[in-house]
Amino acid sequence: MTIEPNKLPCSYFTEKIPLLLENGTSIVELTVAYESYGKLNKNKSNAIIVCHALSGDQFLASKNPITNKDGWWNRMVGCGKPVDTDKYFIICANVLGGCTGSTGPTSLDPKTNKEYGLDFPMITVSDMVNAQLRLINHLGIKKLLSVIGGSMGGMQVLEWAASYPEKLFSAIPIATSSRHTAQNIAFHELGRQAIMADPEWNGGDYIKLGTRPSKGLSIARMTAHVTYLSEASLTKKFGRRLQDKDEISFGFDADFQIESYLRHQGLTFVDRFDANSYLYITRAMDYFDLEKTHNKSLTEIFEKTKTKFLLASFTGDWLYPPSESLIIVRALSAGGVDVSFVNIESDKGHDAFLLDEPEFDNAMRGFLESVSKETNL
Amino acid sequence: MTIEPNKLPCSYFTEKIPLLLENGTSIVELTVAYESYGKLNKNKSNAIIVCHALSGDQFLASKNPITNKDGWWNRMVGCGKPVDTDKYFIICANVLGGCTGSTGPTSLDPKTNKEYGLDFPMITVSDMVNAQLRLINHLGIKKLLSVIGGSMGGMQVLEWAASYPEKLFSAIPIATSSRHTAQNIAFHELGRQAIMADPEWNGGDYIKLGTRPSKGLSIARMTAHVTYLSEASLTKKFGRRLQDKDEISFGFDADFQIESYLRHQGLTFVDRFDANSYLYITRAMDYFDLEKTHNKSLTEIFEKTKTKFLLASFTGDWLYPPSESLIIVRALSAGGVDVSFVNIESDKGHDAFLLDEPEFDNAMRGFLESVSKETNL
Repeated sequence: MTIEPNKLPCSYFTEKIPLLLENGTSIVELTVAYESYGKLNKNKSNAIIVCHALSGDQFLASKNPITNKDGWWNRMVGCGKPVDTDKYFIICANVLGGCTGSTGPTSLDPKTNKEYGLDFPMITVSDMVNAQLRLINHLGIKKLLSVIGGSMGGMQVLEWAASYPEKLFSAIPIATSSRHTAQNIAFHELGRQAIMADPEWNGGDYIKLGTRPSKGLSIARMTAHVTYLSEASLTKKFGRRLQDKDEISFGFDADFQIESYLRHQGLTFVDRFDANSYLYITRAMDYFDLEKTHNKSLTEIFEKTKTKFLLASFTGDWLYPPSESLIIVRALSAGGVDVSFVNIESDKGHDAFLLDEPEFDNAMRGFLESVSKETNL
Repeated sequence: MTIEPNKLPCSYFTEKIPLLLENGTSIVELTVAYESYGKLNKNKSNAIIVCHALSGDQFLASKNPITNKDGWWNRMVGCGKPVDTDKYFIICANVLGGCTGSTGPTSLDPKTNKEYGLDFPMITVSDMVNAQLRLINHLGIKKLLSVIGGSMGGMQVLEWAASYPEKLFSAIPIATSSRHTAQNIAFHELGRQAIMADPEWNGGDYIKLGTRPSKGLSIARMTAHVTYLSEASLTKKFGRRLQDKDEISFGFDADFQIESYLRHQGLTFVDRFDANSYLYITRAMDYFDLEKTHNKSLTEIFEKTKTKFLLASFTGDWLYPPSESLIIVRALSAGGVDVSFVNIESDKGHDAFLLDEPEFDNAMRGFLESVSKETNL
């Protein structure tokens, strides 16, 4: 990886007030790397946080300086787009534990002045949200118009709404779940085992030793990637088509397009992501269990909250299927919360929320417009 | 692995007539390791072949000498059981390419007198079936009462019925598919990449070099294992329950029971399976595409065959879902073939065919009894 955190062109917020973590330890010096789009209005009432997913970053709607590709949600966020940068001030921060500028395992540990590696404390989704809260306090934003996020981003949205309801007018958790299921944990564990089995991982000390567990991280990414796509989308996109050949080779090369595609996904990922960050962030997701953290039922957590919700799920998503969103929707309804829910017919799998889904775009646009009106934006 | 093929207590059949493979090469000296149960009747009309799945072996209904556990289908096969050893003569052979006695990558290459390793030729499901055909010819069996198999076993059943319809009265493909889908290939590719990323794999030469890619094979097994279980069964069996602790550890140890279970599955697998065999057999499955191999539509392949079929699928099986069995059932029906189909309501996932499913047992028993009557057994 050629990433040098703190050197990526984006905004940085650093604070030397310790951030207390859920595990009881602290981050002594917190840095949050973030990007913002649009303009914060005079009374600071048009701010939206977009929370990124496991492999995401702060480059939401601008060119990613590592990959030179468009921002990961360029489709959704921009001038005239559903999350309209002409109307809203949109912030996207690299999560705590990440590897694109925010404090994480690749950061320098102030105690030793060397990279944290596995000395980085275990972080949770709550800790990620608390780091974002520091950022919006710093920006002088008292209340967010909305917090939006898909997948792990959706978990952060739920945690925001559970812990700081007074800080948000609305919340949009997308393709997510209120807790990681055994199957979710299982797939993450495969990825972690692949990383930790790579001798180049060196017990997590690879930066100091000048090695990199590229093979392990690549397999972790391939594994995750399969879970992001539906069987139908894989069949439509690849089926049994061969890669640059007319006949099978009777060998272990990538005969099938799906193999070639997955290998490519793995290889490009290691250029932009840190293996230890991958371990920490997947673990935070596995630990995510809103009811357990708040020691209340979902209905109790959100009872009578004034935050307005839009939930979105996708029929072809088997990683965080619509049934998981429905559990949340039912709890919110039972708690008397204002909640809208769209279950989008799509065969694209979990990744649908990042792809072209006009019905989803319309729901996002409509909901944000209605919240804007209610808040007299 | 402490397996010494050719020394396991079972029957062996060896023939020095080259077996021509689908890839154009040959196996010069073929060994088939097999177990049999029950007695072959006088006119040799009560023989059934049971084909094992990817990680199976010939120890179908007798104690496995490697693991000291019961045979893998002890539930289904035995005295008074649906596949009744009092009535039928049941043969189960280790597949070509396997690692429990049949010719495979751990066998000695007659050319070099060293283990084949990656010099073993690529084999296909057709080649596996042709090796079994040699065995039944050797046993003097002209026609099999049935060929039965689940998962990769079911692929062998379909190939038996497609290539040698005159050799079987009936065929029972269970929880299987007529071709590997992109998703099926993807999961196998993850496993293969994990094995080949392990430096102990040594380009396939690990036996000669005295190493073993245990970590890679273990991850491959863990990956496959997740696909064998449904989300519902994982939730029921493990949910978010912790392993021997009351609170999460905020670390990378196996906090959750599902993690501990998967690690155990991986670790025990490497004691009984060879990594190169795993590569070859998964590749054979990926290459499986009945229509392509026979250059005909499924309907044309089976048109007017007199072989009677029973297909079984399980509603919770997302690896080879009921829709895949239905494709075969429809093609058979369109071809005027006598076909029964049971789609068993089960939340156990792909592994359901190995587990307690009374409705499935009854279908098996009933179908075999009816075939027995028709053949005047």
